[in-house]
Amino acid sequence: MSELVKVVELPFYLEDDSSLVVAEGSGSEVPFVVARVFNVQAKLGVTRGKHAHILCNQLLICANGSIEVSCDDGVSIEKYILDKPNTGLMINSGVWAEQTYLEDNTVLTVLCDRPYEKNDYMCEYEEFKTYIKNKLN
Amino acid sequence: MSELVKVVELPFYLEDDSSLVVAEGSGSEVPFVVARVFNVQAKLGVTRGKHAHILCNQLLICANGSIEVSCDDGVSIEKYILDKPNTGLMINSGVWAEQTYLEDNTVLTVLCDRPYEKNDYMCEYEEFKTYIKNKLN
Repeated sequence: MSELVKVVELPFYLEDDSSLVVAEGSGSEVPFVVARVFNVQAKLGVTRGKHAHILCNQLLICANGSIEVSCDDGVSIEKYILDKPNTGLMINSGVWAEQTYLEDNTVLTVLCDRPYEKNDYMCEYEEFKTYIKNKLN
Repeated sequence: MSELVKVVELPFYLEDDSSLVVAEGSGSEVPFVVARVFNVQAKLGVTRGKHAHILCNQLLICANGSIEVSCDDGVSIEKYILDKPNTGLMINSGVWAEQTYLEDNTVLTVLCDRPYEKNDYMCEYEEFKTYIKNKLN
């Protein structure tokens, strides 16, 4: 996979009865100012995402449970398992990503460097392939 | 309770098999630029927090499970149950807050308007009471 996707270890403070994971914007782990945060929950086995962004960069954190993330940069596909609350997956713009929920009570926290912008989404795979083809030419 | 604590309804997109909750920084729901995000998990019955901030304002979101939040502004104490992923609790600086985890697999997502600053924490209740007394005088 290109440098568009990167696994990031987040600061993790583990105590006897609790744990805390920190993502500080514009810090070393989160290389941008956080414009938007969203939490996603889905039933076991559901696959979500299925789009790429033109500009938006995102940090995915599986806060509870586990998720398989498929990342496609138009040249190759790589899969990552997120099953620790302190493992982040940085996905830059131009990557087609899909997330499959592997456990009940799974929570995906996503930090974005841009607010919601409808026109920033490529939701059709053919559109994404054309975008990549034009980028590579 | 004073205007230091406020329940905020977050945009909630519910589909058949999944849900998505958004908190956009500097938007109407999150009245600040997000400097830091942290996720907390704790065992059933554990109470965490037990401090106040001098400057930091925070939005608490219970992403999964449920939490009881006790908020003390030095004059009165109010308790809130967070058991929906789209209910946020805005806690401004100067409030002593405690969170009790009421279910397994509970995840608390906290958005902060400041980075981590060690000196911003009041971790002794007497220190907090003195701070409030000085503020009210």
